[in-house]
Amino acid sequence: MGTKGKVIRCKAAIAWEAGKPLCIEEVEVAPPKAHEVRIQIIATSLCHTDATVVDSKFEGLAFPVIVGHEAAGIVESIGPGVTNFKPGDKVIPLYAPLCRKCKFCLSPLTNFCGKISNLKNPASDQQLMEDKTSRFTCKGKPVYHFLGTSTFSQYTVVSDTNLAKIDDDANLERVCLLGCGFSTGYGAAINNAKVTPGSTCAVFGLGGVGLSAVMGCKAAGASRIIGIDINSEKFAKAKALGATDCLNPRDLHNKPIQEVIIELTKGGVDFALDCAGGSETMKAALDCTTAGWGTCTFIGVAAGSKGLTIFPEELIIGRTINGTFFGGWKSVDSIPKLVTDYKNKKFNLDALVTHTLPFDKISEAFDLMNQGKSIRTILIF
Amino acid sequence: MGTKGKVIRCKAAIAWEAGKPLCIEEVEVAPPKAHEVRIQIIATSLCHTDATVVDSKFEGLAFPVIVGHEAAGIVESIGPGVTNFKPGDKVIPLYAPLCRKCKFCLSPLTNFCGKISNLKNPASDQQLMEDKTSRFTCKGKPVYHFLGTSTFSQYTVVSDTNLAKIDDDANLERVCLLGCGFSTGYGAAINNAKVTPGSTCAVFGLGGVGLSAVMGCKAAGASRIIGIDINSEKFAKAKALGATDCLNPRDLHNKPIQEVIIELTKGGVDFALDCAGGSETMKAALDCTTAGWGTCTFIGVAAGSKGLTIFPEELIIGRTINGTFFGGWKSVDSIPKLVTDYKNKKFNLDALVTHTLPFDKISEAFDLMNQGKSIRTILIF
Repeated sequence: MGTKGKVIRCKAAIAWEAGKPLCIEEVEVAPPKAHEVRIQIIATSLCHTDATVVDSKFEGLAFPVIVGHEAAGIVESIGPGVTNFKPGDKVIPLYAPLCRKCKFCLSPLTNFCGKISNLKNPASDQQLMEDKTSRFTCKGKPVYHFLGTSTFSQYTVVSDTNLAKIDDDANLERVCLLGCGFSTGYGAAINNAKVTPGSTCAVFGLGGVGLSAVMGCKAAGASRIIGIDINSEKFAKAKALGATDCLNPRDLHNKPIQEVIIELTKGGVDFALDCAGGSETMKAALDCTTAGWGTCTFIGVAAGSKGLTIFPEELIIGRTINGTFFGGWKSVDSIPKLVTDYKNKKFNLDALVTHTLPFDKISEAFDLMNQGKSIRTILIF
Repeated sequence: MGTKGKVIRCKAAIAWEAGKPLCIEEVEVAPPKAHEVRIQIIATSLCHTDATVVDSKFEGLAFPVIVGHEAAGIVESIGPGVTNFKPGDKVIPLYAPLCRKCKFCLSPLTNFCGKISNLKNPASDQQLMEDKTSRFTCKGKPVYHFLGTSTFSQYTVVSDTNLAKIDDDANLERVCLLGCGFSTGYGAAINNAKVTPGSTCAVFGLGGVGLSAVMGCKAAGASRIIGIDINSEKFAKAKALGATDCLNPRDLHNKPIQEVIIELTKGGVDFALDCAGGSETMKAALDCTTAGWGTCTFIGVAAGSKGLTIFPEELIIGRTINGTFFGGWKSVDSIPKLVTDYKNKKFNLDALVTHTLPFDKISEAFDLMNQGKSIRTILIF
């Protein structure tokens, strides 16, 4: 007796309210509706965004919710109208949809998709399926989806526009990282900052996204990559992955980090990538980019950030500020290629994995992340 | 008896201190030193920047000073080592230098020049010649230069890296506008925003720079150009120069201008150009750019502006923010070509000139500008 067409009861981590730890619960996962796919999640990692959005300082997320958006799994069943997936396919759920119909999907200029409608707060978008209902219930209550993925559940339902089919021999305990952190950091350097050969880069924040940005800068041919973090324990790995210099702002005797970088580079870096999202790192990233052509790319979003106040004077000297959405990759089309690139050792996902734990230990995984002790923890169901 | 090698006594407008009106005085203009050129200014216009920097809210300018940076004239004499200019040449002084030696000048990526060393406040840079002295004195006191140009003087001295030789038949009472306003607005659209054919644009502020930006958008092939100003009297001219729609934020019944533009364009413009520089217009310009690929270009710098606070969320959906320095033109090389383009009627400088006055009436010209009654006033010596 298969599970197709039936409600599946399984394990999930529920965020019942903002600012409270996640609770492992039994949830019901309804069958997929039209153009939806139900997936068995095999491995999921966690990302700072999962912690950010359930933080009490973040406003706009509806509760209860199942977060998690960096995972890999296997198709369990498909809804009517699904043609690109079949049960048994290895897949990666994607919070970045690719509807192939909107003006954004039809343009080569962007990987943004018009399915994301809440532009002011994309992190709280896709909390329901397209018919405005949820596929999750717990203790009789409907539970919201998160970013169209909700991977902190043994089974989840996603739209067929939010799913990439990947190679049958893909190692799901590694390529799950392509669902967010790696693709975002690596792609931000390559596709958004458009790092050039021989250039100088600064990467603020050396967590999973930042280390991936370091790899992206290196892959793009940067000749100098300065990694910055307030935790010097991250420097060995950053150097192994391509950083040429590492700086800890707390070790600079109160000299602002941007001044040190400007001195080191005789005028500032060509590309600054901020993977932290706080006001201080955003300001340092902008300040340390060179006049003329310096590009500052914002990747991180921090809870409660006060943003960055900019003045025209800072830009008219030739700087550009942009951001990245999922590393600029056209999601459904690009992720399978990155899976193949990983298999061909074009980049190193393994270095990002510091811990592997059973899913039940998700709270421990959050603690490791919040204490800066992990880069990525892989949770296995 | 020529004037070569001698001090010239002539008329100039001196700003003795911040926040006070300019005074017409007799000044002494020393002969040009090595790699300097002394010019007889024939026509100078005035630009909001001239008013901004002598405003008491602007900090950093040294007084007394001769401002003015949008002019055309004739070479009176040259200093040692000058090879590209000779007495009698028609020229346009340029606050944007082109030293041809620094890493910026040697790069095709920027028109910024390393001669500008005070990156935090480029408007107060080039207040002295390269030997750190001034060529102006008045009532026995040295008077500072402004932006390396100081065109509110019948004679001025500029570096040979800050000067363009133009066609002998150029109409100096028109091409003086290429020294700043026209080139900045027109070039910002073409070179910095890189407006594309068929695109939708919004131009905030319809003064001389804004109208020039409208012309730039049109020249680049934009199909819709929305002009915004709080003075509806500017709309007829904006429409004559290419604006397809004009909006006055004060006529919108308290609906924010950005919301109106987003509705009009079904999601926002491809390119927003802010020629005002205040916090409100900067925010409106960013808000009204489309997700995916919207570019917001800052052109204006307002005295006492509180800047714009940005959040990563506003950029990760695919927006880019940049600025313009002199419209992105490699100054000395590009301005002669623009002079020829004007002669060939590729754009309309005449429409920008609303008043022509003798130089002595400079205070009247400032009043006309500050009251929004003029676009550009040409002052004739």
